[in-house]
Amino acid sequence: MSSIHLCLINPNSTASMTEKCGLAANRVVGPGTQVKAVNPTDSPASIQGYYDVAMATGPMLEIIQHDQVSDAFIIACFDDTGLDAARCLTSKPVIGIGEAAFHMASLISCRFSVVTTLRRSVPGIEGNLQKYGLAERCAGVRASDIPVLDLENQDASTVARLDEMIATAINEDHAEAIVLGCAGMVDMVHDLEHKHGLPFVDGVTSAVTLAEAMVRCGLYTSKIGGYAPVSAHT
Amino acid sequence: MSSIHLCLINPNSTASMTEKCGLAANRVVGPGTQVKAVNPTDSPASIQGYYDVAMATGPMLEIIQHDQVSDAFIIACFDDTGLDAARCLTSKPVIGIGEAAFHMASLISCRFSVVTTLRRSVPGIEGNLQKYGLAERCAGVRASDIPVLDLENQDASTVARLDEMIATAINEDHAEAIVLGCAGMVDMVHDLEHKHGLPFVDGVTSAVTLAEAMVRCGLYTSKIGGYAPVSAHT
Amino acid sequence: MSSIHLCLINPNSTASMTEKCGLAANRVVGPGTQVKAVNPTDSPASIQGYYDVAMATGPMLEIIQHDQVSDAFIIACFDDTGLDAARCLTSKPVIGIGEAAFHMASLISCRFSVVTTLRRSVPGIEGNLQKYGLAERCAGVRASDIPVLDLENQDASTVARLDEMIATAINEDHAEAIVLGCAGMVDMVHDLEHKHGLPFVDGVTSAVTLAEAMVRCGLYTSKIGGYAPVSAHT
Amino acid sequence: MSSIHLCLINPNSTASMTEKCGLAANRVVGPGTQVKAVNPTDSPASIQGYYDVAMATGPMLEIIQHDQVSDAFIIACFDDTGLDAARCLTSKPVIGIGEAAFHMASLISCRFSVVTTLRRSVPGIEGNLQKYGLAERCAGVRASDIPVLDLENQDASTVARLDEMIATAINEDHAEAIVLGCAGMVDMVHDLEHKHGLPFVDGVTSAVTLAEAMVRCGLYTSKIGGYAPVSAHT
Amino acid sequence: MSSIHLCLINPNSTASMTEKCGLAANRVVGPGTQVKAVNPTDSPASIQGYYDVAMATGPMLEIIQHDQVSDAFIIACFDDTGLDAARCLTSKPVIGIGEAAFHMASLISCRFSVVTTLRRSVPGIEGNLQKYGLAERCAGVRASDIPVLDLENQDASTVARLDEMIATAINEDHAEAIVLGCAGMVDMVHDLEHKHGLPFVDGVTSAVTLAEAMVRCGLYTSKIGGYAPVSAHT
Amino acid sequence: MSSIHLCLINPNSTASMTEKCGLAANRVVGPGTQVKAVNPTDSPASIQGYYDVAMATGPMLEIIQHDQVSDAFIIACFDDTGLDAARCLTSKPVIGIGEAAFHMASLISCRFSVVTTLRRSVPGIEGNLQKYGLAERCAGVRASDIPVLDLENQDASTVARLDEMIATAINEDHAEAIVLGCAGMVDMVHDLEHKHGLPFVDGVTSAVTLAEAMVRCGLYTSKIGGYAPVSAHT
Repeated sequence: MSSIHLCLINPNSTASMTEKCGLAANRVVGPGTQVKAVNPTDSPASIQGYYDVAMATGPMLEIIQHDQVSDAFIIACFDDTGLDAARCLTSKPVIGIGEAAFHMASLISCRFSVVTTLRRSVPGIEGNLQKYGLAERCAGVRASDIPVLDLENQDASTVARLDEMIATAINEDHAEAIVLGCAGMVDMVHDLEHKHGLPFVDGVTSAVTLAEAMVRCGLYTSKIGGYAPVSAHT
Repeated sequence: MSSIHLCLINPNSTASMTEKCGLAANRVVGPGTQVKAVNPTDSPASIQGYYDVAMATGPMLEIIQHDQVSDAFIIACFDDTGLDAARCLTSKPVIGIGEAAFHMASLISCRFSVVTTLRRSVPGIEGNLQKYGLAERCAGVRASDIPVLDLENQDASTVARLDEMIATAINEDHAEAIVLGCAGMVDMVHDLEHKHGLPFVDGVTSAVTLAEAMVRCGLYTSKIGGYAPVSAHT
Repeated sequence: MSSIHLCLINPNSTASMTEKCGLAANRVVGPGTQVKAVNPTDSPASIQGYYDVAMATGPMLEIIQHDQVSDAFIIACFDDTGLDAARCLTSKPVIGIGEAAFHMASLISCRFSVVTTLRRSVPGIEGNLQKYGLAERCAGVRASDIPVLDLENQDASTVARLDEMIATAINEDHAEAIVLGCAGMVDMVHDLEHKHGLPFVDGVTSAVTLAEAMVRCGLYTSKIGGYAPVSAHT
Repeated sequence: MSSIHLCLINPNSTASMTEKCGLAANRVVGPGTQVKAVNPTDSPASIQGYYDVAMATGPMLEIIQHDQVSDAFIIACFDDTGLDAARCLTSKPVIGIGEAAFHMASLISCRFSVVTTLRRSVPGIEGNLQKYGLAERCAGVRASDIPVLDLENQDASTVARLDEMIATAINEDHAEAIVLGCAGMVDMVHDLEHKHGLPFVDGVTSAVTLAEAMVRCGLYTSKIGGYAPVSAHT
Repeated sequence: MSSIHLCLINPNSTASMTEKCGLAANRVVGPGTQVKAVNPTDSPASIQGYYDVAMATGPMLEIIQHDQVSDAFIIACFDDTGLDAARCLTSKPVIGIGEAAFHMASLISCRFSVVTTLRRSVPGIEGNLQKYGLAERCAGVRASDIPVLDLENQDASTVARLDEMIATAINEDHAEAIVLGCAGMVDMVHDLEHKHGLPFVDGVTSAVTLAEAMVRCGLYTSKIGGYAPVSAHT
Repeated sequence: MSSIHLCLINPNSTASMTEKCGLAANRVVGPGTQVKAVNPTDSPASIQGYYDVAMATGPMLEIIQHDQVSDAFIIACFDDTGLDAARCLTSKPVIGIGEAAFHMASLISCRFSVVTTLRRSVPGIEGNLQKYGLAERCAGVRASDIPVLDLENQDASTVARLDEMIATAINEDHAEAIVLGCAGMVDMVHDLEHKHGLPFVDGVTSAVTLAEAMVRCGLYTSKIGGYAPVSAHT
């Protein structure tokens, strides 16, 4: 198999986050696989809740529409922004970092908890878990009250709040693994794992390696139902 | 209570459908209630599946953002296009015709079936049913393979296909009521009810009278969780 | 459409509660709608748990059987006393205040909690939520340990206990709206909403406006399945 | 342990059915156990759907209230008429024949189907399965369109209709066992088992032996929650 | 009916536990029923988690394969060790003490909690509850951190830890009954019931009386699906 | 990252099937990854139903216990034989081909169907789907009545039976993708995909690429709950 080209799209417009995701992604993929990390410039600076998701979907879809060369697409926002619509645009694999993390976590633990940013994002994440079918594997979705962009410049109080919420997930939810609920946390996995003594799952690395796996297996998005190709309207 | 002003938004750009919905809506509301029916001009002509939903969301949200006078909003597409995002924009009630129909159907039958247009729309409707919690009350979501815009000009074969799928829902799903899964079917309720001998639920009339009920009760959208107001990004 | 006549039945025999419900109901309905509030005299003074529900069902059904003029019926007990049986007696809409409140709450919040009277009533309410399909939208059903009839004469300690349980629902369940789980709480909505800063849903006003909506839409109870007309036994 | 006295209550007023149930019950219980079979005289002749259930509940509860000697109670109608209310009246075990049959069937098969009488009874049975938690173990509830009282005088066409529905349950639901959904079918088990080649579960014999088991284990109905004792109203 | 012979298999190799179970079992069965209590000698001393379950399954199955005389089998480990495989070996009833306890608890309470030994056993028990369909009836599975074999020699600190966890189940889960989640707790039921004031359910006595009930009813394990007889491989 | 060593264990003793799986596995993994395919010699020739699963578990676990060099383990039987017990033996990733296929299928379709071998295997597969949480994504598990070992020598009638069942899954379940429910079908994917026009998911290739992804991400099995390390018994 020739080399694999993955396109990671950060649906928000914060370039530092895109860069951080791209670095993490290229560190884990196999020999011969390349990850291109991009973001739209006309979307919200961060995606916090349903309205931001709606605003970021259009610009993200446009990137997919104009990319004829990538072998698979990763949507690098934990809300899995516009995932279903994206799958209508291509038969190549499209995977969100939220769903990737949930699937991976369910392979290494009996039950996992999600620790995310703001409370307003919780219902969307819970809705995704229910839709993917993995809600029963999740022991809780907990908000740390850390705004997304505070993760670009992690100070001590940010880390302390995250630690506190992780401890709660372990002690009260009896979580056996923790899913980090924001792309901006991708660089915190190793420290947190060391500190808390259980596996952490990050969506960015989960999604790029899963996308690679799908390409290697020759899997493609079904075109006979909900992801039927977009067509002219009659 | 002074008069109530409702804004019904058809998220697609087909004006004849908007007009049909507006007429049906104004026929059922109470004395002193007025329904204004509008549609964006820069959205798909019909909404068939996830991609169209994504494309129609932005233009629909813009209408809500610029309307300071209506007491409640109705999203008149059976996919409940952009409903969660719309609720972030206002504390006034926002209701989708899909959810309105599901709630009404569950008040008049032990189990109901949905008969909709194309198969590609089925997963989105099933996802909504699951999210609203009403999936267990639904005996089946059936596609008639009628494109949305064929409903603007109902010929005999369109009606025949619909009749056939309704008969299947009654005989195989043991549906006790039928939900019509497209705003464009609003003018067919009475004929179908007469022909098939069980109650039919249309989303447009369900949603406008529900919205009226919510306004009368003083109900408003919660602002402390998933529908928190949209704010500047930190 | 000519004027609408609704019959609100308080299934317990406490006339002061009936009167309170009737006043609240008539305040919210539309112009031209009239609500008649009645109660049986041979039923329990309050309905607290499964046995009381069973004892109150027969007298409530008799009222429906002898009413040929109302356009719809409201069962004004939060347990939705005898609702399924009532729907077998008439094709006119019949709606319980419990189910009405659950449906309304699910239209204005991602998740709601119920605050009710005694612990013995909780399993019945949870059972109804599951049956209606709305259990997943409910973050918790909490008992305040206030007997139903204490609500007819609300002293400071009653209000304090209710406030405490509401605060728990907000802080621990992360409820975005509160459903008040007893008809006798209908007069407390506005004070509580002001005090706690999130929407409260009362079943009485929810149910009468929903019933009005159903009548306006021409919706009727299905007669081909579980609500088939009662017939002589073969 | 001294001898065990069980009270089997047929909640309908058809004495021939009561007698049939009593005979079947006494045939299966252990040495020293006696089953008294009774029925109210002021209840419906058969229980077909929600309204009949409501009408039969009061008379059934009265029998329990006046029986101080029995060690456990069996409610011998497949709808489990008034079961929750009955459990509020006594700390002795109370078991319905519907629930008994569902529990037994789940111990001998991966999935079972229910074959019952009229379609109008199906939603109530499905509701019970969901409430008991055993809905997922049930592959289908199928109505044979045989009125309850036709089972008192089983002619060839009645048996033929039952056979047909059983065959459908085996072939389409892939049922591994069949639950007979009416007390009046108690005398048909052995013939049907012989004819169809898979286990059949009857509620009457299941319930009386389960009640016996509960008495032997010293199990009693919890009094601290939903089944708290009925008390004077404050 | 002639006398009934039950075979109770403790799948671990600790003979004192087997003896304790046998005594408790023979105390509750009816006149003429005999319970033989056995255990393999080549299985783990206690069964704590998935690996022990796997190691104990083979030896347990061998006992069933070589027993041609018993009328039913009881698997006396709360994990229901190898239950599905055992049902493939015989058409006689086979019942696990975990499932027996869950079924019994659901007949005497609206919701029950399980108090078991180690945390590592919790996911297996939760998995069984979900598989049996009774997860929704269970308010919580709580680990007391007492190793199984400490129950063979109950000191004050063991009892104190159990008491504490039971109190938590009552106060936080609102459990109406407690299921004791280990065969080794069979001798503690009466003391605990006296101390905590609600019903306790033990699996051993529940299972033997349920097995007796199944034999009396003539129930047998279905052979046409998941429990089809083991055959030579083609 | 240095090269990755995966150990694929076919839990049955049929070497030709092991070889077929090993070839397919090595074809899809990335540069530098090696898959070693092994099978025990003292397990059943094929695994068809619960009893075979129990018999094959011990020998499979022994292979894992003696392998100190592999980076991850794949259990190459569609029942995911002994998966939970295996995860107690190592902190390295362990993945079953059944679960791998379900996860992959849920990433490329809104709903998928499983087409497997014998009906007796269906309940185990359905149980796994429910346990993994993916049951709601599965539209049906269908048995083709092809014994496992017939797949080692695929004649025309075998293929015809499979084709027929696949067509049923597409037309009746509205499956958007098909999961092949046996390791022995790994060589049929491309022909079937070509013939039926929708994506097919094979567990073997799915599992090895997923295992590779997990190793690359540094994911390991949690050791603080259900998969706690096996220890000496106290």
